[in-house]
Order: sequence, then C-alpha cells, then structure tokens
Amino acid sequence: MATLSDIGVAAAINILSALIFLLLFAILRIQPINDRVYFPKWYLKGLRSSPVTSGAFVTKIANFDFGSYLRFLNWIPAALKMPEAELIDHAGLDSAVYLRIYLIGLKIFVPIALLSWSVLVPVNWTSDGLQLAQLRNVTSSDIDKLSISNVEYGSDRFWAHLVMEYTFTFWTCYVLMNEYEKIASMRLAFLQSEKRRADQFTVLVRNVPPDSHESISENVEHFFMVNHPDHYLTNQVVYNANELAGLVEEKKKMQNWFDYYQLKYTRNKEHRPRVKLGFLGLWGKKVDAMDHYTAEIEKLSEQIMAERKRVKKDENGVIPAAFVSFKTRWGAAVCAQTQQTKNPTEWLTEWAPEAREVYWPNLATPYVSLTVRRFVMHVAFFVLTFFFIIPIAFVQSLASIEGIQKSAPFLDTIIEKKFIKSVIQGFLPGIVLKLFLIFLPMILMIMSKFEGFVSISSLERRAAFRYYLFNLVNVFLGSIITGSAFEQLDSFLKQSADQIPRTVGVAIPIKATFFITYIMVDGWAGVAGEILRLKPFVIFHLKNFFLVKTEKDREEAMDPGQIDFYATEPRIQLYFLLGLVYAPVTPVLLPFIIFFFGFAYIIFRHQIINVYNQEYESAAAYWPDVHGRIISALIISQILLIGLMSTKGKAQSTPFLVILPILTIGFHRFCKGRYESAFVVNPLQEAMIKDTLERAREPNLNLKGFLQNAYIHPVFKDEECEDDEYEELIEDSDDENCVVVPTKRQSRRTTATSSNPNGGSSQPLSCNQPDTSKVKPEP
Amino acid sequence: MATLSDIGVAAAINILSALIFLLLFAILRIQPINDRVYFPKWYLKGLRSSPVTSGAFVTKIANFDFGSYLRFLNWIPAALKMPEAELIDHAGLDSAVYLRIYLIGLKIFVPIALLSWSVLVPVNWTSDGLQLAQLRNVTSSDIDKLSISNVEYGSDRFWAHLVMEYTFTFWTCYVLMNEYEKIASMRLAFLQSEKRRADQFTVLVRNVPPDSHESISENVEHFFMVNHPDHYLTNQVVYNANELAGLVEEKKKMQNWFDYYQLKYTRNKEHRPRVKLGFLGLWGKKVDAMDHYTAEIEKLSEQIMAERKRVKKDENGVIPAAFVSFKTRWGAAVCAQTQQTKNPTEWLTEWAPEAREVYWPNLATPYVSLTVRRFVMHVAFFVLTFFFIIPIAFVQSLASIEGIQKSAPFLDTIIEKKFIKSVIQGFLPGIVLKLFLIFLPMILMIMSKFEGFVSISSLERRAAFRYYLFNLVNVFLGSIITGSAFEQLDSFLKQSADQIPRTVGVAIPIKATFFITYIMVDGWAGVAGEILRLKPFVIFHLKNFFLVKTEKDREEAMDPGQIDFYATEPRIQLYFLLGLVYAPVTPVLLPFIIFFFGFAYIIFRHQIINVYNQEYESAAAYWPDVHGRIISALIISQILLIGLMSTKGKAQSTPFLVILPILTIGFHRFCKGRYESAFVVNPLQEAMIKDTLERAREPNLNLKGFLQNAYIHPVFKDEECEDDEYEELIEDSDDENCVVVPTKRQSRRTTATSSNPNGGSSQPLSCNQPDTSKVKPEP
Repeated sequence: MATLSDIGVAAAINILSALIFLLLFAILRIQPINDRVYFPKWYLKGLRSSPVTSGAFVTKIANFDFGSYLRFLNWIPAALKMPEAELIDHAGLDSAVYLRIYLIGLKIFVPIALLSWSVLVPVNWTSDGLQLAQLRNVTSSDIDKLSISNVEYGSDRFWAHLVMEYTFTFWTCYVLMNEYEKIASMRLAFLQSEKRRADQFTVLVRNVPPDSHESISENVEHFFMVNHPDHYLTNQVVYNANELAGLVEEKKKMQNWFDYYQLKYTRNKEHRPRVKLGFLGLWGKKVDAMDHYTAEIEKLSEQIMAERKRVKKDENGVIPAAFVSFKTRWGAAVCAQTQQTKNPTEWLTEWAPEAREVYWPNLATPYVSLTVRRFVMHVAFFVLTFFFIIPIAFVQSLASIEGIQKSAPFLDTIIEKKFIKSVIQGFLPGIVLKLFLIFLPMILMIMSKFEGFVSISSLERRAAFRYYLFNLVNVFLGSIITGSAFEQLDSFLKQSADQIPRTVGVAIPIKATFFITYIMVDGWAGVAGEILRLKPFVIFHLKNFFLVKTEKDREEAMDPGQIDFYATEPRIQLYFLLGLVYAPVTPVLLPFIIFFFGFAYIIFRHQIINVYNQEYESAAAYWPDVHGRIISALIISQILLIGLMSTKGKAQSTPFLVILPILTIGFHRFCKGRYESAFVVNPLQEAMIKDTLERAREPNLNLKGFLQNAYIHPVFKDEECEDDEYEELIEDSDDENCVVVPTKRQSRRTTATSSNPNGGSSQPLSCNQPDTSKVKPEP
Repeated sequence: MATLSDIGVAAAINILSALIFLLLFAILRIQPINDRVYFPKWYLKGLRSSPVTSGAFVTKIANFDFGSYLRFLNWIPAALKMPEAELIDHAGLDSAVYLRIYLIGLKIFVPIALLSWSVLVPVNWTSDGLQLAQLRNVTSSDIDKLSISNVEYGSDRFWAHLVMEYTFTFWTCYVLMNEYEKIASMRLAFLQSEKRRADQFTVLVRNVPPDSHESISENVEHFFMVNHPDHYLTNQVVYNANELAGLVEEKKKMQNWFDYYQLKYTRNKEHRPRVKLGFLGLWGKKVDAMDHYTAEIEKLSEQIMAERKRVKKDENGVIPAAFVSFKTRWGAAVCAQTQQTKNPTEWLTEWAPEAREVYWPNLATPYVSLTVRRFVMHVAFFVLTFFFIIPIAFVQSLASIEGIQKSAPFLDTIIEKKFIKSVIQGFLPGIVLKLFLIFLPMILMIMSKFEGFVSISSLERRAAFRYYLFNLVNVFLGSIITGSAFEQLDSFLKQSADQIPRTVGVAIPIKATFFITYIMVDGWAGVAGEILRLKPFVIFHLKNFFLVKTEKDREEAMDPGQIDFYATEPRIQLYFLLGLVYAPVTPVLLPFIIFFFGFAYIIFRHQIINVYNQEYESAAAYWPDVHGRIISALIISQILLIGLMSTKGKAQSTPFLVILPILTIGFHRFCKGRYESAFVVNPLQEAMIKDTLERAREPNLNLKGFLQNAYIHPVFKDEECEDDEYEELIEDSDDENCVVVPTKRQSRRTTATSSNPNGGSSQPLSCNQPDTSKVKPEP
C-alpha cells in the first residue's frame, strides 16, 4: 500500500509532465508556422488568414518576439474570458454544454470535498482501527489512516459516514436538477433563437409501404396530401446512391491530382509533368500527367452522369423513405409526434435530423431488420464486454516470441537479437491491449451504425452508452476485483445478491491509491497532452512538407478535429463515479478529482475556442444521457457503501441506507418527467410562436424554394453544383434554393471548398454560404 | 404425496360439487321469479320485461313446464351459439376479448398437452429414477412416475424435455402473436365502426397553469385558439363538485323515500304513512311521511341550487383541468399525441376517456403530487406484498380464544362453550385470511385511485397488475417455497443468483399434486359457483322481499354485476403460469388446466350474454397487459426449468436453455413495437377517414351542440335535467344536445332512470336515449 509520500512523488512526476506539455504548448503555439495547428477554428471562421502575409521568411516560421515567451501562460485567462453566450455563438451549444460537464464536476465535488475533509477526515484520523489491526500484524499506510479503514469494527463513528452519504446524495441531486433545468432552458432558447432551418419544417418518413400503382414519391405525396391536407408542402425521396458516391469520390481524387500537376507545371513551364500508370505510380507506361487526368476526369464525369440518371430513373434506386416538408413548423411538429396509420411499422415519422448529420446508408433499414439488428448488437456488446480478453490474449500469444517464430520463421534472425527480443516481450502484449482500447470507441461506433440509427448524434449517443458500460465493467469493477470481466460475472452469479456489494465494497478502500495514480496519469498528464495536439501537429507538418500540393490541400491538411462525444464523455463519467464512490470512504481522493475537473475545464475551453470544429449541432441532445449516468454513479456508490458497511459490523445501517438508492431513482424519474421532453420533442407552442413571427416578418417567403434541395443526398448536391446550375440556383431563389443548414457556425468543409468554387469542387454541402468565399482570394 | 387415486377422489368430489352447482342453476334459472337474477342483461337491453305480464300468481314464481327440466343443460349450446360479431355487438368488445383469454388458454394448452402426453409421459414412465430412489427409501407416487422426477440423474432423456420446452415456447409465442394481431385489428375495427362519440373529439387537458388575469376557462380557450387555431372548437372546465355530489346523493335518497311512502299511500288511502325522525326511524317525533320528505327535498333542492351557483362562480371551485373539444377527430388526435409547451408538466394532454369512465376526483392532481403518490404507492405495495402476513397474524391473534377473552371479557361465558370454542379456534384465523384475500382487489383498487389515474380502465389495469404480482409472490412462490413472502425475500437476497431458480425449480415437481387440487377447487368448483350467482341471488330476493318500494327499486335490486377485470384476470393468469411451468415437468397437470379453461369459457360466455353489464367500454385496452403477463409466465417457466435441470445433473444444458428467455424477451419487444400502439394512440389516418366520411354524410352537423354537455360532471348533468331543461334540450338539438356516449350497449343506470323521467330523477347520464323509456310504462 502506498504511503502519502509515494503519492506525493507520483503527483510530482505527473504534474511535472503536465507542466512540460504546457510549456511545450506555450512555445509551439506562438510560432507562426504552427498557427494552423493551434488556431484552426479561427481559420475556418474566416477570422484569421495565413500568417504568411508579409515579412521575412524566417518570421513566418519562428517567433522572435521574446516578450511573448514571458507571457506563456496567458492563454489561460484568455480561454476563461469568453462569456458563455458568446461561446455558444462561437462554437455551438453542444460544445458549450460539454464544458458544463466539467463545471458540474467542480460544483459537485468542491463542497463535498470541503465537507468530507472537515468532518470525515478528522473522524477517521482520530480512530484507531488500524492500530488495533497492526497488533494483528496488518500493515497499513498514512492514506489508510485518513480513510474509513481506520474506524474500528462496529464503531458508532460510522454514523458520520452515513449522514455524510445522505448529504452528498442530496447535494449531488440538487446540482444535477439545477443543471438539467438550466441546460433544458439553454437548449430551448438556442432552438428558439436559431434562424430558419430546413429541419424545422421537415420530418423523416421511413418504411413507406410499397404500392404497385405509384412510385414512392407519388405515394408519399398522396398520403400526406390526404392526411395532413392543410400543412403538407413537398417531399424529397432518398436515392440509394452508395455506388454513385464512390464514383464521385474517385473523381475528386483525380481532380486533386490534376490540380497538383497543373501547379507543378505553372512553377516549371519547361517540361510537362509525366506520370506512370502502374501501381502507385511506381511502374508502367509513362504518359503526360495533365492530359491523363483530364481524360480520366472526363471519363468519370460521364460515368457519374450515367449512374445519376440510372439511379433517378430506376425504381429500385429509390429507398422507401422520404423527407417530407410542411408549410409550417407546427405542421412538422405535429407529424413528427403522431402515429400516421394503424400499422405502427409503416409510415414511421420522426423529426428530421439536421441535413449534415443524416447517416444516409441507414435510411432504408426496414422495421423487422431493425429489431433483429438491435438484438444482435445487444448480444454482441455483451460478448465484447465480457469476453474481449479472449481475442486479445490470442493476438498477444501471436505477438510473443514463440508466436512470431512459428507464424513467420523468416524473421528468426531479427528476433534473436537481444534488444528486439526484450522489446517484443516487454511491449507488444501491452501495446496490443492499448490498441484495442484505443480502437474500442470506433468499434462501438461501427456497432451503432449497424444497429440502424439514422442520425450521427444518435449513433454517438448509443456508442457513448456502451463505452460507459464497458468502462464500468472492465475499468472500474475490473480494477477493484482483479480478474477478467467474465470471471467476475461468473462469481457474481454464484454469489448471493447481498454478498456482491460486500465483495466489491470491501475492496474499495484498498484500491484508493491505485485510482489516485490512475487519475493523475489519465486525468492530469493525459489532459495536458490534449492541448499539445501532438498527432495533428506531426501530421500537419508532415503533410505540409510532403503532400500539400495546392492551397486547398493545406486547408485540408489542417485538422481541427472535434470533441468525439462518444469517446470522451464516458471517460469523464469514470471520474464522477470514482468521486462519488470514494467521497464517504477515502476523502483523500477528492482533491485529485477536483484538480482534474478544473484543469480539464480550462484546457477544453481553450481547445473549443481555438481548435475544435464540430461537424454537426445537436443542441445538447445528449444531456439526458449524461444526467442519467451521473445518477447511476450515485446509485452505485450508495450500494457499495451498503456493502462496505455490512462488512464493518454496521449491517443494521442497511435499512437506513437502502432508502437512498430508492430516493435517487425517484429523483431520476422526476427529472426525466420534468425535463427530458425538452430534449426529445418539439412543443407545439414554440413552433407556433416561430411560425407566427415569421409570417409577420416575411409574409411572402418562398418556403418551397428554401426547402427544395435541403435533403438531397450529398452526392446529388455535388452534381447540381457541378453542372453549372450552381450560380443559377442561387440567383433563382434569393440565396434560398441550395442552402443547407445556415447555423451560425460555418462548417469546416464548407469553408475549405468554397475557396475553390470553380474548380469542379466535389465537396458536400458546398452550395450555401457564398459569403465565405470572400475569406480567400481565388487562386 | 398423493397417488393417482387420491387425485381421482378429489376430482370426483369437485366434479360432483360443480355438477350440483350446475343442476341448481339449471333448476333455478327457469323459475320466473329468478328471471331478473339470471337474465338481467336482457332486461337492461329492454328485450325482456318482467315475467309478470299474465297468468296466475304461482306461474309467476315457479315453472311447471316439466319439459324444460329435462333440457336443463341446454344453456350450454345456447351460450356457444352466438357468433363473436354479435357478441361484440351485444356485450361490447371488452367482454368479447375477455372471453378470448380463455380461448387462448385452450389454444396454447391443448396442443402442448397432446405433445407432452405423447412424448414426455412415455419418456418419464419408462425411466426408473424413482425405482432407484426407492432403493434409497425415497417414497413416491404414481403421479411422480409420470413426471420428470422419474428420469435418472444426468440421463440423456432430459434432452427430450429441453426440446419440448423449445417447442412449447415457440407454440405459445405463435399463438400469442396471432392473438395480438387479431385483437388489435378487432379493436381498430370496433373503434372505426363506432358511432360518433364525444371522446373521439375530445382531449383531456390537465395542469392548466394559473393565470392571474384570466379564468381557467378563458385561459384554456385562448391557449388552444392560439396553438390549434384551425381545429379548436370548445372546452368544458371541470368543477370540484364533491360536496355538491354529496348533496345530490342525499336528495336522491329522500326522493326515494318519498316515492316509497307515496306508493304505500296509493295502496292504502286510508291513513297517510307516518315516520319517526330519530335514528334509523326507530324513535323520535312522528310526522307525516310525505309532507316531511317533500319539505326535505325542497330544502335540499335549495341547498343544491346555492351550492351549484357557488361552485360555478367561485374561482376555487374550478379544477385546473378541462375537456377540450376539436372540430375534427384529426385535431383531437393531434392534440392528444403532442406536447403543447416547453414545460412538460403543464398543459398535459391525453386522450379523453369515455365520459362514463372518467374518475372525476383525480382530475385535479398536480404533476409533482402524481410523482410522489406513485412512489408512495410502489412502496406501499411492496410492503403489502411482503409483509401482509403481519397484520393478518395480529388480527388472528385477536380472534383467538385468548385474544377475545382479553379484549372483551364480557363474552367469556359464551366462549367457554365447547362448540363455539372449536368454531373460533378452527375457523376464525382462516376466515380472517380469506377475508383479507377477498378484499385484496378492492384494497389494490383504492391504492390505484390514490395514485391518480383519471380513467376507470387505467385504474383497473394498475390494480390488476398489482394483484398479479401479489398472486405470483404469495400464491405461486408462497406455495412452492413454504414460508412468508418476507422470509422468501430474505432467503433470496442471501442466495446467489443462480441458486434461486434451483431452489424453486427443485420444489416444482413436488408441488404438482397440491396445484392439481388447487385447480380443481378454485378453478372447477369455483367457476361453477360463479354461474349460480349465489350472492346476487340471495340479495335480490332479500331486497325484493323487504326493501323494494317501487318498480324503480326492483330495477335497482337487480344487480347484473360485471366482470371486474382487476379481480378476475390475474386469477386466470395463475393458470397460464401453472400450465407453462408444469408442461415440461409434470404433464399430468395439463388436462386439469385445459378443463378449467374450457369450462370457464362456457360459463363466462353464458354470463356475459345473459348477466353481466359492463359499466364502460375500453375497447380491450387491457390486452397488452394480458399479453405481457403470459409472456412473463413463459419466462418464469423457462428460468425454473433451468434451475430444475441444474439440480438434475444437466447443468450443461443451461446455455442451451438460457437462449429461450432471451428469445422470448426479444419476441415481446417485437410484439410491443408491432401491435401495442393500436391500444395506446389513435392514428391520424383512421381519424381522417372517419372525419371525411362524416363530412360527406352530414355536412351540416352541429358538432358544438353535440359536444356541449358531454363532459359535465354527472352532478351538473342531473341539475340540468332537473331544471326541466331536459325536454327542451332534446327538442332543441335533434337528440344530440345532451347525449353522452351512445355506444351500442345501453348502460344499466340509464335504463333504470329513464323509466322515471318526471320524478325528479337524480341519476347520472340520464339525458340521452329517450328510446329506452319505451321499455317500461310510466308508473
């Protein structure tokens, strides 16, 4: 067991590495050459252009204003300065609310830490349970003297812990309720303040039943004409355009190469660049590059044209789903919330996701298949959680010396070398596990996609939920009760229901020091590493050096990244869980958690302001999940305390403590009833208010024009822009024809593309926001 | 353990008592004097009038057509003859679907019984597990030779049982799915074929927020005018009229007495009847009865007038709830299914229940109170289920000899007598328990009322659910594992999760004979007792003899009763549970269950055709609950078989069997998604079809008139009828002004009242259906 000084040393090491990261960041960020790594957001917003505007070449790369090195921490107040309203405007509600998760951590744990340090620590410290134990040769450490372990068996002092658990529970619930209310109202205000958006008027209809007499589009039109006569406006069928998307992707690549060789040629007009036709351009016949790519592009264009016509004409190319638009937001709200026919598996209506976050491949999944897929994925996730260690162990055995010798005997001579051998033995197994854990969120995301959700935000929410469960079982419980998850499951099944909390509870205080170290490594140094952006930093400079052919490429090499909700939020939840579990048991752990929340808040606030660029905006639709997971952490902490107490000779406190989880569940249900609907449905009153205002302001609005092309599969949108209908469209309909989703933020992709509108761009979502083109002059 | 012949004797006794009941019924039912006991339904429908039309006095009482005694069982084919469509027309969908529950029992268990008798019984019979056991001095019976107990430990023959369990599961699911589909379509057809009903156009709005500037009615009007501008028609506020209802009840009683004395006076004009004013008319001043009651009625009428005005004027008399009616069914369907404002605890809309089944006292319950009440009732039910034995034991101790001697010493001399003593010792404790069990459904119903449901059907559904749980814990588990529920709970908590099914599973075969006896007593004799209607029979004749003062009283003395869904359905579920649990274990039990289902089907079909009169019609809204409970019985049977198998040396079959509950849950979720919505929401397409048809048929319909008084608190309805607005109203608006709910069936109450429309009737729902008055001539 670690002593206080051991912890101190570990803390020092981690603080030091965090400081090194921060220092590196402070130096790197003020070098102009790194500007696009550390401030991409501002480039995307068009508020910052390349630092290459003037001055000597050297000043483009390095910063010689030594004064700025002295102010190397001044990004912290800068990050904190931006008020929340402006932050929402700048980065969207998703990001702003994401930051509030860290703030909640502070709001919950700072008062809890103060209380438990002023009440529980003295109570624990002045007991002599461990001294008595020492007489029986049980070793202990200073940390344990501060924890519940130091209280004698059956002592009345445990009542202090019980009362504190009550206080912690009430405080946590109070904070959670306030926060839920606040965020619900933020969401409503955000939705209310938004400009006209296509998804406000649109409903996604799935499982349109086949009709032998009518095409799907006609069928949809007739159905809604009849059943929503006063409100139906138009509909947009969904084409099965996966093949087409492939061709377009191919053409885009060719176009890029063409641009590259053209650039090369303009630099050196003496000889036209030539290219080999074989694999990766390494061998084969040499031809003139520009001619070759021009021909390729033309060929692909024709193929695309043909495919596009085929898809649009072929009845099988149309998916039995459609985006149906209404004359008013009220009409859309009604249609999204009601059941259309007596068969609840046909004509399924739901609120249309923002066009950017539609996950097109899943639109066609029929109802029965959905049920089956969901079921299969539940089973697959269960297997993944409890048996993931089996394939890992298999790969690890392959990655061992003997495994390699067996499967690849020709590597024998290399492996025999001592250094390589030790690397393989020492690192490979760990790396295999680490790689699996890194790829886990992605695996879970693929599972969600298979399950058939149609919007990216719901995909992310499901993946986040599963990742949380995985962490709970394999990281939290797995660390407390050593052994694989499956062994745990087996032993849990064989233990009685009241034995399980005891088994876990009794191990809780023992593992405190392990979790403190975990928090410092994962939470402190890990978060500091985030701000350094090592991976994007390296990749940007590599790309910039080797691959960047055009200005557009440089734009694309700049990877602002985004908060991957499904990968990051479940990890924060682990800290809530640890904090709540250890608050009554080992209060020493709390300051470490508080430091994590505070530090991460500052870092992520800075990143959100300067770096990340979210690809879509769900208006904090994930909040009920976050709330629910904190509640479940609370309940887990209460049950484990019951278990711990019953091993401490305080089994009579069980009835007193059992009330707590019941109350907590009641509280959760109350919150769900009271606030959740704000995140799920669109109330009619709000829709009516917006409709009325709009009618007063713009009585002659051409809504049909506005909605016409909002929900075209991105591939067709490209087509239209390409066929030089682009300019026409915009002129035709007063900027409203081809607009996708005019949120306040401008998507990164959009900016990247509109800088090259004439180059036959094949970016999605490229038709709107012509104003962004002023950011950069035409090449 | 009982042998086959023991069971035979018990069966004989029960069949005999059932036959005696049937014989008694056959004799009693053809006596004209009992006509109102055994055929009340036809009286209420107006298709049968008193048998007192002609003939000698004796033939009014007894039947001397001896031929009819020979055909004493001819009610059975008569009961089966009526086709289902006509039955729905005659008794409503609720009753018709209720009968289908018994049919499902037959559909599930007849093939299962055939299979298990042809496969499992030979397999069991030809094993020698019990012979081997007998060598170790374990006694057994013939029944056990047919059961799974006879198969040797670890034998491969168990695979037959496993495969059979799969077959049973698939068959049960197949039947359930067919049935769900069938009943869903029956429900939709029923709703579609119904005449215009007020609840089709109406939505119940609760938790109207207070507004300092407007009354609730104005507030509601404005809100819906704004948010449903094209569809809103009118609204009806709800008055808090509990006090008024009391006064009206009082007046009705006085009116009744007045009628009685008037009748007496007309029979004997010589002296006017006189009455004592004191307690129960036993002492006090004697006054002229008719004058006294006339004065009383006038006084009450004035009080009622005043109270009515007070309630209608007083702002506090109005509950923040309203029935809002729309111009179209479509508008109502939309409003019921959508959320109105951003605060989901205000302006709660839901489909309005039929006016007859509104539970008025609960309309005012605010949202927070609802959450708290629900929570309190969950806890109360838990306590009731697991600790009900404690108060029972307390009362039993009071009801013992010592208890009575202690609390009522003056009874000493009586108690000392030997006969009385043995009665007290032998019967009282049992009677106390029996009384509790008889009152249990009522207690659960009161709990549901407290919970705040606003329609009687939802009250009944909740009470039925709780009764089922209670039966499951205290009758099923309580019989298998002897000991109070709380002791079970305690032992379950202390056992491991995989031990519990074993503990229960191993006891299953042993208890087979007990349950066979239970089925015969409760299911056979009990059901046969149902047809005799002993209680209504006695009460009717007592009332008829002593209390019936007027013809109206005789109408009221006739108590057709109804199927109390919450008390009867959970008891049927017990048979499903027993059948499914014992099908693979002790197939001998199945014929007993099949006989129960068949017999009960005939009996209840007869009763529904001839006797019962449902007070409201929910169009089989309870079906999803029935379905869910059969599914849960299936899952329980599968888990118990897993437990049993693992004690039989077949633990390796567990993974093979574990798939079954998972598949069953998957099936349940599929059914829920596929069919449940038919029982919950009103699809827009259906509403639109009805609207369109109606518009075509009756373009000049005065809908406002039709809806105006549909949802008045019954007390006010009386008032209006009383104030002689009754006739006027009917003439005013072509029979549509004061109509309540013109279903095909006519409520009993209605008939009872309309026979006396001028007598200042104070029955609810009395304004519609003037056609029923032709049934009986005016007194």
